[in-house]
Amino acid sequence: MTVWNEFRHERNNPQVTSVYPEGIHEALRSGLSAYGFTIGTATLDEPQHGLTEEVLNSTDVLIWWGHQAHDEVDDAIVQRVQDRVLNGMGLIVLHSGHYSKIFKRLMGTSCALKWREADEKERLWVVKPTHPIAAGLPEYFELEQEEMYGEFFDIPDPDELVLVSWFEGGEVFRSGVTYSRGLGKIFYFRPGHETYPTYYREPVVRVIANAVNWAADERGVAPFYGNAQPLEKISRKVNE
Amino acid sequence: MTVWNEFRHERNNPQVTSVYPEGIHEALRSGLSAYGFTIGTATLDEPQHGLTEEVLNSTDVLIWWGHQAHDEVDDAIVQRVQDRVLNGMGLIVLHSGHYSKIFKRLMGTSCALKWREADEKERLWVVKPTHPIAAGLPEYFELEQEEMYGEFFDIPDPDELVLVSWFEGGEVFRSGVTYSRGLGKIFYFRPGHETYPTYYREPVVRVIANAVNWAADERGVAPFYGNAQPLEKISRKVNE
Amino acid sequence: MTVWNEFRHERNNPQVTSVYPEGIHEALRSGLSAYGFTIGTATLDEPQHGLTEEVLNSTDVLIWWGHQAHDEVDDAIVQRVQDRVLNGMGLIVLHSGHYSKIFKRLMGTSCALKWREADEKERLWVVKPTHPIAAGLPEYFELEQEEMYGEFFDIPDPDELVLVSWFEGGEVFRSGVTYSRGLGKIFYFRPGHETYPTYYREPVVRVIANAVNWAADERGVAPFYGNAQPLEKISRKVNE
Amino acid sequence: MTVWNEFRHERNNPQVTSVYPEGIHEALRSGLSAYGFTIGTATLDEPQHGLTEEVLNSTDVLIWWGHQAHDEVDDAIVQRVQDRVLNGMGLIVLHSGHYSKIFKRLMGTSCALKWREADEKERLWVVKPTHPIAAGLPEYFELEQEEMYGEFFDIPDPDELVLVSWFEGGEVFRSGVTYSRGLGKIFYFRPGHETYPTYYREPVVRVIANAVNWAADERGVAPFYGNAQPLEKISRKVNE
Repeated sequence: MTVWNEFRHERNNPQVTSVYPEGIHEALRSGLSAYGFTIGTATLDEPQHGLTEEVLNSTDVLIWWGHQAHDEVDDAIVQRVQDRVLNGMGLIVLHSGHYSKIFKRLMGTSCALKWREADEKERLWVVKPTHPIAAGLPEYFELEQEEMYGEFFDIPDPDELVLVSWFEGGEVFRSGVTYSRGLGKIFYFRPGHETYPTYYREPVVRVIANAVNWAADERGVAPFYGNAQPLEKISRKVNE
Repeated sequence: MTVWNEFRHERNNPQVTSVYPEGIHEALRSGLSAYGFTIGTATLDEPQHGLTEEVLNSTDVLIWWGHQAHDEVDDAIVQRVQDRVLNGMGLIVLHSGHYSKIFKRLMGTSCALKWREADEKERLWVVKPTHPIAAGLPEYFELEQEEMYGEFFDIPDPDELVLVSWFEGGEVFRSGVTYSRGLGKIFYFRPGHETYPTYYREPVVRVIANAVNWAADERGVAPFYGNAQPLEKISRKVNE
Repeated sequence: MTVWNEFRHERNNPQVTSVYPEGIHEALRSGLSAYGFTIGTATLDEPQHGLTEEVLNSTDVLIWWGHQAHDEVDDAIVQRVQDRVLNGMGLIVLHSGHYSKIFKRLMGTSCALKWREADEKERLWVVKPTHPIAAGLPEYFELEQEEMYGEFFDIPDPDELVLVSWFEGGEVFRSGVTYSRGLGKIFYFRPGHETYPTYYREPVVRVIANAVNWAADERGVAPFYGNAQPLEKISRKVNE
Repeated sequence: MTVWNEFRHERNNPQVTSVYPEGIHEALRSGLSAYGFTIGTATLDEPQHGLTEEVLNSTDVLIWWGHQAHDEVDDAIVQRVQDRVLNGMGLIVLHSGHYSKIFKRLMGTSCALKWREADEKERLWVVKPTHPIAAGLPEYFELEQEEMYGEFFDIPDPDELVLVSWFEGGEVFRSGVTYSRGLGKIFYFRPGHETYPTYYREPVVRVIANAVNWAADERGVAPFYGNAQPLEKISRKVNE
């Protein structure tokens, strides 16, 4: 697993530094390590954003957190990540990553939503208890303070809707949604505003760990595309 | 895991006896044992059809094969199986089990389809390669001879469509489909006519083994139903 | 269209009588008439619950409201309604109808949920703006006071999720969901507790009117089920 | 409605000219006119490919056929079309349009598939008879000769699977699939190789006409995105 983080807020905003002194990626690495994963990290300001061919080819699941610098992500790297997803790498997009180039490219929509920063309570409800991403969760869990994200969230209808959020101010949000794209599995998970200690909360880390296991599972053989064998060959097969 | 089999054809039809001398349930037990499962069996003519409370409560996944005696399955046992599925037991329904009381009750439809016995070649194509039930499969696999099942198959739209069959005579069929019902996961898998050695074929056994692992995976906490705590309690929580 | 109503609360509970003096079915008929529908009604205490073969065969969409007397609905009538749905009649199930025999039979699940009577504000959000059932709706609409229904709602994953409710007390609910069963289209719509004037509210009536139009639309030819024509006939076709 | 056609094969390949002397777009206009639509056309070699702001803003549904010159479609026009789809224009993508820039951008996948030119019979089966796009269709219809397209088709799981194709050579294909993207509805329909008179076939035209009606239907109000009103305003509402 590789955790990718924009890693800007933590260095230019004291409030965020106080919450994530080593960066959101290190907080996630620390929390997820308890689940026995081997975890690498990569950040925007590294060469190739830390996402070289070598790194991506050895990554089974990529976690993505970005916010203020989406436009600084190089299109060639975005293409490289998309190609890896279509070839089987799992992708977990967190919170403000909804507006990342890679998520918008994989969804085909604007990925726009409503938002409000008002220290609101969020309550996340499990609406698909059979899903492995909900394993071990209670019926709902609360975050005392979060940024509000509200519907309409301009995403394709999810393959599976796992979590729906309630916000104190009157909104709801599809907070845990899954997709398949090519041979890759994608999970979008809403919580994680940089000014709150959300990624230290056990239920949040548990959801991400479950999603990594779900997205990394075994695949079928890669399909063949293009000009298929001549009909007569198949016909012999059909008639043999 | 418990394999339930009607176990009538094998005793009253010499052609079937020659293919499955010990019964379809024993053929499945033998093939699935290679995957390391602990497997019990149950059949129609045992007391309570072999599906006592004890058996069902200790069964994580139930496999169901029936055909000529669907009506002989006691409604109280059907209710018991449905209750267990809604409480988390996995259910894998095979071939002619599409017309079983338990499958029709869980689907809410007629589960009717087209069929033809003409020794036709069947080719099963994977249309969702990211699904764990497709793990380790080739792009398609063939069965030299099978009974044809054709669309329209009167089932609810599947949660996930994993396999689609092509038949020599001109039909297609949604052959591998998943559903959630309550806390239980359901997989319907088409192949398995009693006059063919289908359940000895490796890809067929592999699909069933994958489905058992998929249906048995960890669950979230069971939800609470009914009259929820008074609003004022929650309000204090919301405002605290 | 036929509006079916249990019609008991309105006759035995003065509070409900004051809100729906002529019954919920008459309130719905009056509101829906503005949309140009021809509307019949039927109630529990009529012979055959008012749902004779003649009535059902001439009904394109059936609306269902029931609560305290679900068990008094005759199983033979439930079977008749299910058969009509599978043969193409639309069905719109309202509020406490989630526990009706007909809805549970078509869903295959317990249809259980959380509930609370605390005069809570409900806010219904559109999460699928492209759906015809959302035509003409604002982004959300509010009901000042409603009974709370909360997740987990034990229904199959909907074909389409159109509306999600927010409740003052902290719950969310999938309030507008669609299904296909056989040739019939089904819409479950949450609002409508008997002690509130919900069915006089314009957005609520608009949703139901949209759902009737959606559920009544033209169908494809009914499929053929059973033993299909011999292979050789088809083969000639295939090879001609 | 506007029919967009690459319109190259018909001018540079005598075999195609003989089938579609005035172009595929004119064949579609002629066939669809019988359904009472007002139809404009646009082609690749017109200025802005015939897709000016004026044209797109007055188009409720856009039909797209392209094949050999996908790369010649200007990215700015592709963006313009995508923006219109996300804002509510319907889009119907035909046959080799699966590889168009606009379809790949809206899907987020490679949209790759298998293909073979061998004059094979195609049989299209309806697997969702309740869908308006299947209105008036028989259970299946045949095309005597078509190019084969085979699975795995690298598209996201469809919102709705309406048609599945059987091919003489042994493949199956998801031939009629629907998606929502933003406020727009999308239908991909497989048939239509330029060397066959497919677009003169009544069932094919009927499917496209049904899809136009489905994709053009009324929409809900456009959602608001961005910073939502301050919490205190909403709270007053909640507590009033």
